[in-house]
Amino acid sequence: METLQIFKIGGGIIDDKNKLNEFLKALSLVDGKKILIHGGGKIATTMADSLGLKTEMIDGRRITNDQMIDVVTMTYGGLINKQIVSLLQAYDQNAIGLTGADGNLILSKKRPEKNGIDYGWVGDPEKVNVEFLLQLIKSNLLPVIAPLTHDGKGKILNMNADTIASTIAITLSAHFECELNYCFEFKGVMQDISNPDSLIKEITKKNYLQYKEEGIISQGMIPKLDNAFEAINAGVTSVLIMHHEAVIHLKNKEFNEFTIIH
Amino acid sequence: METLQIFKIGGGIIDDKNKLNEFLKALSLVDGKKILIHGGGKIATTMADSLGLKTEMIDGRRITNDQMIDVVTMTYGGLINKQIVSLLQAYDQNAIGLTGADGNLILSKKRPEKNGIDYGWVGDPEKVNVEFLLQLIKSNLLPVIAPLTHDGKGKILNMNADTIASTIAITLSAHFECELNYCFEFKGVMQDISNPDSLIKEITKKNYLQYKEEGIISQGMIPKLDNAFEAINAGVTSVLIMHHEAVIHLKNKEFNEFTIIH
Repeated sequence: METLQIFKIGGGIIDDKNKLNEFLKALSLVDGKKILIHGGGKIATTMADSLGLKTEMIDGRRITNDQMIDVVTMTYGGLINKQIVSLLQAYDQNAIGLTGADGNLILSKKRPEKNGIDYGWVGDPEKVNVEFLLQLIKSNLLPVIAPLTHDGKGKILNMNADTIASTIAITLSAHFECELNYCFEFKGVMQDISNPDSLIKEITKKNYLQYKEEGIISQGMIPKLDNAFEAINAGVTSVLIMHHEAVIHLKNKEFNEFTIIH
Repeated sequence: METLQIFKIGGGIIDDKNKLNEFLKALSLVDGKKILIHGGGKIATTMADSLGLKTEMIDGRRITNDQMIDVVTMTYGGLINKQIVSLLQAYDQNAIGLTGADGNLILSKKRPEKNGIDYGWVGDPEKVNVEFLLQLIKSNLLPVIAPLTHDGKGKILNMNADTIASTIAITLSAHFECELNYCFEFKGVMQDISNPDSLIKEITKKNYLQYKEEGIISQGMIPKLDNAFEAINAGVTSVLIMHHEAVIHLKNKEFNEFTIIH
């Protein structure tokens, strides 16, 4: 099977125009078929502030009321997505920006209220339109996916970008050797975030439990790693957590400055 | 050749959620292959106001500085485009939202300063990616195009939606019998805007000149009609200017409550 590389970038890259540009330039030099999924970063919060809307987060997840879904639709689906697409076009990558509503790419279900927490217009994935995505990839388009989906009833729903990345990787693993690369501003999962030499080079199911028990792997990293293990269990070829600048070194088989999950 | 119907909607429909919803419902009942192009409406101006940015217009065209291109990218490419796409999905239309940057759909050139007027990040069309558009249409997708293009160098450019509609219609007229329908809040071109019985049912090149001389056709309508004649001259099958609610009656061959340009 052909290899498909799925990259996910988050706020630390998106919020910094230079970092974003450097990442996209490096991405354009990666050979073969690719998909990019981007998060939202701080832009939605800054925009909400400017519009006098209060941002409320629970466990790192945004409470998405009627006003906030408009803000994230504008910023994730419009500003960030189209800036990435136009920059990739400048690097001769035929990018196409998508939300889950476009081409019915990701149909999702509004998350029900649970334990008294109502996340608002937030969705959990139900179905990926595989045929549509395959058609785009086979046409040498580079899908750039914003963390938004739809409920099929006319409503846009906010969705976690890590979840979109693993969902897409799992769905496409029947058609490609999917390599899922979570890119951020660290070398990978660190034992100690302040010590650049403390990179954990591999995490297996066994040592993951141990790292969690010892408190070495912290709150913020747990959902990402849970997503990663779910992807591996469901047939994704490899999951890496890596620095965005390291993307350019992926070709080099000697290169191992990342965390591999298996 | 198969018929392709190209619809353009402007601010009067987009700014009113009920009108927009009614239009999209009617559009979903129109048989055959379709493309929708939308303008921006007042949402960008309202958003700019909320963000403390001043909107400057010359001859009805927006001056698009660095801040304003971000505002129109958010509102046209994000908020409006994705709301339309998700509503069309609810009406079982497999819509895909696009700007000119997506799939390199419309490459454009930044308009040079002329007569001391610098429109800023505003583009004039250079090249439509016909193959990409044909591929989408043949896959029964309904392209929903926002009035934004790109310059191929990483910059998003603002573009007039009427111009996008006629450019797309002209380009596709080699492949389809293109019917271009400009939809707005009047029955068509009116002799007297305050008199609903004053619809001009047809405008030919000859009577267009006369109407202009007599001042019956006013400033705002002239660029739209110039676009329309350009389209007809370049092989577009028909151009109608019509009420958005009339879309539903297009199937009825007896129906003639619109302005036809020929």
